[in-house]
Amino acid sequence: MTKRPLEILDQALNQKPVIVSLKGGREIRGILQGYDVHMNLVLENAEEESNGVIKNQGTLIVRGDNVIYISPSIN
Amino acid sequence: MTKRPLEILDQALNQKPVIVSLKGGREIRGILQGYDVHMNLVLENAEEESNGVIKNQGTLIVRGDNVIYISPSIN
Amino acid sequence: MTKRPLEILDQALNQKPVIVSLKGGREIRGILQGYDVHMNLVLENAEEESNGVIKNQGTLIVRGDNVIYISPSIN
Amino acid sequence: MTKRPLEILDQALNQKPVIVSLKGGREIRGILQGYDVHMNLVLENAEEESNGVIKNQGTLIVRGDNVIYISPSIN
Amino acid sequence: MTKRPLEILDQALNQKPVIVSLKGGREIRGILQGYDVHMNLVLENAEEESNGVIKNQGTLIVRGDNVIYISPSIN
Amino acid sequence: MTKRPLEILDQALNQKPVIVSLKGGREIRGILQGYDVHMNLVLENAEEESNGVIKNQGTLIVRGDNVIYISPSIN
Amino acid sequence: MTKRPLEILDQALNQKPVIVSLKGGREIRGILQGYDVHMNLVLENAEEESNGVIKNQGTLIVRGDNVIYISPSIN
Repeated sequence: MTKRPLEILDQALNQKPVIVSLKGGREIRGILQGYDVHMNLVLENAEEESNGVIKNQGTLIVRGDNVIYISPSIN
Repeated sequence: MTKRPLEILDQALNQKPVIVSLKGGREIRGILQGYDVHMNLVLENAEEESNGVIKNQGTLIVRGDNVIYISPSIN
Repeated sequence: MTKRPLEILDQALNQKPVIVSLKGGREIRGILQGYDVHMNLVLENAEEESNGVIKNQGTLIVRGDNVIYISPSIN
Repeated sequence: MTKRPLEILDQALNQKPVIVSLKGGREIRGILQGYDVHMNLVLENAEEESNGVIKNQGTLIVRGDNVIYISPSIN
Repeated sequence: MTKRPLEILDQALNQKPVIVSLKGGREIRGILQGYDVHMNLVLENAEEESNGVIKNQGTLIVRGDNVIYISPSIN
Repeated sequence: MTKRPLEILDQALNQKPVIVSLKGGREIRGILQGYDVHMNLVLENAEEESNGVIKNQGTLIVRGDNVIYISPSIN
Repeated sequence: MTKRPLEILDQALNQKPVIVSLKGGREIRGILQGYDVHMNLVLENAEEESNGVIKNQGTLIVRGDNVIYISPSIN
């Protein structure tokens, strides 16, 4: 079974939170509410952990060129 | 409910201030008055906090490639 | 009232000096005499402040990919 | 025998895990389940080793511009 | 009077030397003999100053993506 | 005799190993089995030397934007 | 007399060695045997000087995005 990267994003819409790893070491977690071909993302209930403190960010529009990877599954 | 990133920007136009996180650690807050497909942004009453001092910047045109994320909700 | 980023640039043409913040921390001030879709800019009577000394640069053509933001209003 | 880069990716689909070397020194291993022309990748059962600890990442969508190389063979 | 960035370059052709500020802090001075839409430049009698020593470079083809700004006027 | 860069790559296919110099100082050696217009490369029997130790990498798909230069001749 | 950047490259083909200055401070000298619109270059009898030692590189295909400038004249 073969799947294009954007198909996987499509399946992750409005599911359990995804983890988004950003360039520069930041990591954001949130419910994927939308995306486009540039991997621009809409995250709902987004949270960023920094030095052990979780910051609630609400809705975030992440510009795709900052993304390293997106993990649809929570470990 | 699924939303494209630019739709969210559209809904944020002329609402409460958005927070724009820029590469290099800068963060700007202002009323989103416009945008385009590159995520170039027009911010009104823009403010930048630096070392605890808030600098009032008036209108700003932010070039989209500097943007990490945009948060339409103020926490 | 909604405005595209390039419209704002258009309104700033030949008005009071704009401030252009560049990647790498440089800041240039000058009268905006022209621009294009890449945000390449033409600045007249451009000035750059460095270590408290103002350097008069005359006309400058700034390549758009260096721009972080443009502020049409002088604070 | 000559092979285009994307043909090799195609042959590696759903085979033994591939190793993906990322900019910034990270290395991820997983089963290649999909890709596109930007070298965006879908990795299944992805694992990242960091300081001798293997972190299980589940499914990952890696944005292609982070990739240095992909090795379809495990050494 | 409004002028597109490339018009200014056009007017600077074969006039007095221009100053080209490059990413990484280098600055080159020379007679602009040509350019294209990427801001690739042809400089004649190009000179680069480094640690107070002027190095004569003859003709240079500068790749546009290195350019920060071009100053057609010598101060 | 004039040759386009991609013609030289074409002549180097399945010949003696090429040396690929990558951004960040890495150097990989292998038999060029394929390429595309982005300079994405397929290398067979790829080897990377690091701190005097040669690591055998098997087949590698190198993303073109990491390439500084390719040397078809072994010195 | 006005000349486009690529015209100058065309005139430099198979003439005296050109000097190519690369991002990261490297400098390569060689006979220009080919180029394309991205400023990808083919250099013959390429030489790189490093710490006073000249390394003979034979034929090199340099990816254009690494180029700062090309100097067709030897000083």
